[in-house]
Amino acid sequence: MTKEEIQSNFQSIQDQITRGIESADGKAHFSEDNWNRAEGGGGRTRTIAHGNVIEKGGVAFSAVHGPTPEKILHALKLKDADFFATGVSLVMHPQNPYVPIIHMNVRYFEMSNGIWWFGGGIDLTPHYVDQAQAQWFHQQLKATCDHHDSNYYPEFKKWADDYFYLKHRNETRGVGGIFFDRLNETKNKSKQEIWSFVEELALSFVGIYTHLIKLNKDKPYGERELLWQRLRRGRYVEFNLVWDKGTKFGLDTNGRTESILLSMPPQANWEYQHQVAKGSAEYDTLQLLKKEVDWINLIS
Amino acid sequence: MTKEEIQSNFQSIQDQITRGIESADGKAHFSEDNWNRAEGGGGRTRTIAHGNVIEKGGVAFSAVHGPTPEKILHALKLKDADFFATGVSLVMHPQNPYVPIIHMNVRYFEMSNGIWWFGGGIDLTPHYVDQAQAQWFHQQLKATCDHHDSNYYPEFKKWADDYFYLKHRNETRGVGGIFFDRLNETKNKSKQEIWSFVEELALSFVGIYTHLIKLNKDKPYGERELLWQRLRRGRYVEFNLVWDKGTKFGLDTNGRTESILLSMPPQANWEYQHQVAKGSAEYDTLQLLKKEVDWINLIS
Repeated sequence: MTKEEIQSNFQSIQDQITRGIESADGKAHFSEDNWNRAEGGGGRTRTIAHGNVIEKGGVAFSAVHGPTPEKILHALKLKDADFFATGVSLVMHPQNPYVPIIHMNVRYFEMSNGIWWFGGGIDLTPHYVDQAQAQWFHQQLKATCDHHDSNYYPEFKKWADDYFYLKHRNETRGVGGIFFDRLNETKNKSKQEIWSFVEELALSFVGIYTHLIKLNKDKPYGERELLWQRLRRGRYVEFNLVWDKGTKFGLDTNGRTESILLSMPPQANWEYQHQVAKGSAEYDTLQLLKKEVDWINLIS
Repeated sequence: MTKEEIQSNFQSIQDQITRGIESADGKAHFSEDNWNRAEGGGGRTRTIAHGNVIEKGGVAFSAVHGPTPEKILHALKLKDADFFATGVSLVMHPQNPYVPIIHMNVRYFEMSNGIWWFGGGIDLTPHYVDQAQAQWFHQQLKATCDHHDSNYYPEFKKWADDYFYLKHRNETRGVGGIFFDRLNETKNKSKQEIWSFVEELALSFVGIYTHLIKLNKDKPYGERELLWQRLRRGRYVEFNLVWDKGTKFGLDTNGRTESILLSMPPQANWEYQHQVAKGSAEYDTLQLLKKEVDWINLIS
């Protein structure tokens, strides 16, 4: 796998995902925005808004290169090297509060000194947690992981629990998923094999989200559910701006702000000490926003 | 000035400010929330919502003490000390997009080894910049500063420009104001004299904001202005969660989340690459969100 092949594959993945989302939405189409990075490379940002299903979403492809940012050199204890990074990132904010927010990212990084790795993840943020759907979502991820390595799912599920966590709220962003970083060649795994895992994961996205959309998009809702959706979107904003390492790194190193903040919801609300009634659907959701929930075995 | 006197004075300042805002609002009243901090001290958080003028606002008083957080010890190169911190913080998000958002903070910090300082600031974030009002606002701050030290205004105005700055947007949060930190005894200034400055600034707040409310609260507006207000509130959220040192420190050191996030707007919007028409009021506002605008002499 050359970096050119990986880049071109990621671009195809973006194509398949945007076609799949347009088809699931049934109304809105993506707008495309091509941009160049002064230091090298660029991207193709696609955004969708005001759809039947998707209120605001983005699927970003980029492939950038140049001198490695000082912060990365420092973290890797390197003096000087060029880097190349390519990937696809997406976040979807649906209209209907019963359709979950979803996020996926797949990425490849390499340096002129030969270091390389893949990273990525997918996680689900329902405004209202449906246990059967959360279980099904984790089953899909586990199946993809298990095709490649039976250690992947338990390790990457825990990683997602730890990563998608709002320390200041003591709650997870949603029902988690999987997260992994710095996956590279080992004794028993080639670059090609790691790529196969990353690719299979990325290609599983459309089927997973289309299924979750179909299950929820026609559920009736009113002002109560919309207010709750906006408050939960507020938490999504808090995670992305306070804790997400990728967002912080991008904003701090002169990244392309509008692409980095694609993940922002169309609208988010805050209330001082919003209270939910014990036993309400909102209350039940909050009880499930915890680390270490064994979604696969939660219900039978 | 003992720390008990300063604490008690800050509490009175909170009282005067909440009375003043209720009077300017004419409808809503503050709710009070008393809380204790496990490690020592506590606070009195007052919030207001759904008023004639104020859509969401908070005025927080706190006085906390205990072992100094590791991060501060490290920054000050100290091994071990107790600390005491007290202050008043406020943010007001108005209903009418022509009324500016305002923020003020006054605070006192001391340690068991004898170190102490005052800090604070006030800054204005109009959704639509009115140059005459921004000039008037800065004139009030300059007058307060000049009563105490002719170096204060130029120094603290620049500090606010640098502090209330969204690096990732290359824009200031609003029209700035003043910001200062670690003000302590010098050859020609006693603790009492510094306190007099801090107190005069805090007590100037009600008059300043009441005047800006009166000038703007009855201006007509529609959907266009409300959308712009929500987008600007999105920038306010970005500043507070990405760049504000106090917010980051609080969320990172197990501070009281609901008090720290009092500053959040009731609602904020994001759009991918929102465009404004050249020559529009929104465009004119963006041109003025720059550092180093000489507001005092901008118009005559």
